[in-house]
Amino acid sequence: MGNLLDSLEKTMLMGPGPSSVADSVYQALAKETIGHLDPYFIKIMDGIKSQLKTLLNTQNELTIPMSGTGSAGMETCFVNLIEPDDRVLVLINGVFGMRMQDVATRLGADVDTLEFEWGTPVIVDQVKQQLAEKEYKIVAVVHAETSTGVLNPVAEIGKLLVDSKSLYLVDAVTSLGGLPIEMDAWGIDALYSGTQKCLSCPPGLAPISMSDRAVAAIKNRSSKVPNWYLDLNLIINYWEGASRAYHHTAPINMLYGLYQALDDVLNEGAENVFKRHQECHEALVKGLEQLNLKMLVDPTCRLPMLNSVLVPENVDEASIRKCLLDDYRIEIGAGLGPLAGKIWRIGLMGHTARSENIEQLFKALKTVLG
Amino acid sequence: MGNLLDSLEKTMLMGPGPSSVADSVYQALAKETIGHLDPYFIKIMDGIKSQLKTLLNTQNELTIPMSGTGSAGMETCFVNLIEPDDRVLVLINGVFGMRMQDVATRLGADVDTLEFEWGTPVIVDQVKQQLAEKEYKIVAVVHAETSTGVLNPVAEIGKLLVDSKSLYLVDAVTSLGGLPIEMDAWGIDALYSGTQKCLSCPPGLAPISMSDRAVAAIKNRSSKVPNWYLDLNLIINYWEGASRAYHHTAPINMLYGLYQALDDVLNEGAENVFKRHQECHEALVKGLEQLNLKMLVDPTCRLPMLNSVLVPENVDEASIRKCLLDDYRIEIGAGLGPLAGKIWRIGLMGHTARSENIEQLFKALKTVLG
Repeated sequence: MGNLLDSLEKTMLMGPGPSSVADSVYQALAKETIGHLDPYFIKIMDGIKSQLKTLLNTQNELTIPMSGTGSAGMETCFVNLIEPDDRVLVLINGVFGMRMQDVATRLGADVDTLEFEWGTPVIVDQVKQQLAEKEYKIVAVVHAETSTGVLNPVAEIGKLLVDSKSLYLVDAVTSLGGLPIEMDAWGIDALYSGTQKCLSCPPGLAPISMSDRAVAAIKNRSSKVPNWYLDLNLIINYWEGASRAYHHTAPINMLYGLYQALDDVLNEGAENVFKRHQECHEALVKGLEQLNLKMLVDPTCRLPMLNSVLVPENVDEASIRKCLLDDYRIEIGAGLGPLAGKIWRIGLMGHTARSENIEQLFKALKTVLG
Repeated sequence: MGNLLDSLEKTMLMGPGPSSVADSVYQALAKETIGHLDPYFIKIMDGIKSQLKTLLNTQNELTIPMSGTGSAGMETCFVNLIEPDDRVLVLINGVFGMRMQDVATRLGADVDTLEFEWGTPVIVDQVKQQLAEKEYKIVAVVHAETSTGVLNPVAEIGKLLVDSKSLYLVDAVTSLGGLPIEMDAWGIDALYSGTQKCLSCPPGLAPISMSDRAVAAIKNRSSKVPNWYLDLNLIINYWEGASRAYHHTAPINMLYGLYQALDDVLNEGAENVFKRHQECHEALVKGLEQLNLKMLVDPTCRLPMLNSVLVPENVDEASIRKCLLDDYRIEIGAGLGPLAGKIWRIGLMGHTARSENIEQLFKALKTVLG
């Protein structure tokens, strides 16, 4: 009997994620489900840990995918590290910095923020000044701010925290797989990501990694983590050690997909993948400028995988997006918050970041923009 | 290039879940990913809501899958309904009742428990007595206790709560799709389930449903839900209404899988599916008794989909399970907690519940048990 799935149309996903998925990953998702305690499945789990450690340039043992989307990764990092009244500094220049503030506040943290204009990066000197005035248990920033297309100076902020007691927490949802991440060298203590951006695996998992310092903070909590599902003290026992104690039933087929997506990235070579993202970004910007479109973000801090394009005056941004989707099955993203109606967000993430896709977009845009 | 996924072996999943997955669902998982805000995807979401309402026999508008496994469903129900010091009564006769207690306690609830021997059901009269003594905001029970194979009297407990102010919270992880659930008729206010049991979709999603009373309790909280990821106040805006505001990126391909799994159940006819589970259960018990194996649970309260079998004396239960898995690729489950080493748990869930599978198990068991 037929149903809605029969009429799904192939869509080029050029928004802020999900990105287009490679056939290899679709095939992985459809592989035979085996048990979450099956020794063969444990091998796949160990494989994913190892792949993630490679891509994050970290030695952290606690490097695993959480059973939820990228936002569950954010929740995981904060809920495990925060105890009531802990002081947290969140650096905000977009939606995902604001989300960090919301998450941390709900957990009872004493949250300070430094805010920067949307479309511009975090200013390191202002962070330095703030840190000179006050000590924080956690300093949190977004690496690649998906809502604006801005790259934040994660390595430079990390340098400010060397020798401090603060834990450095980084959102790498959109950067992982599209930009180099040097988790250990940059002094990052807690990091979360998602699968549906530059890894080009469908949404549903949140890779995280915790430094030894972060793990110690979690193990030495004075209160239980107020979230059983995301409690790393329990989850470690499933992902590490000999006994592999059942916590919750792992999302098996999604993990197959992630394993395959990471395998694809590592086989192509992470450096080659980053180069492909950068080259696509440059081709996109060049073509957009030929169409007289302007970028929101200064060239010095533009993300390769998320391109914010200013909507020309007198253009109805939503109708352009609708037309691209309806007539060409190309999805691009809208602006969020103060940028709603003002920008389009064009994603070149993972499998989407290919020159033939950019050509297709230009062809469509030329017609649609008239 | 080859990898670990190439050597995955077809496995008959006869444990406590995940269950074996039908080809139709594998194919659904591998369908083209489209955007989580694509109008066509919204149609699929609406389809899932409608399918779940049918299977749960409920009119609840807030009937949706959460983006995590069954345990995330448990977390969702408690974290949205509990505010600090709220009085909660948890009825415990197995691991999943204990988990409810743990989850609720972490959230700052004032938790009372009534405990019953593992392998026996909740005794309604004792609940009645407790409710006469004390008022609770939430009364929580597991419908099908996966750790023991016991069916709890959910409808009867519901009758005790008619005209009370208590919200009735039910774990339907293992029962959904294998046993009738009359959410509205039984007076259930909050219910969660999982996909990897009798729906035979791989793990990764947690269907939940909330009555109008439960929704009112969530909307009238005096404090924000201390869990951004699972906050139903926010998630409602993505799953209901005209605007469909982005909250987190939905696990798109997993939702295709769930949609297909529910479509398969409803096409076969829920009553037929329940009958198939019951008939398989009866055939299993008969065959096990012919092998001189005994059941843990009294026939009056045995679950059809989860069968606890007493391990005969002088038999090493783990080596039998290992042998079934290694030599026959049949997975059955071990006992948990006080039942570890004492029982096997044989699941007949969803797609696994077929007579040819039971025949295969008997053939293997005869050899393995000698």
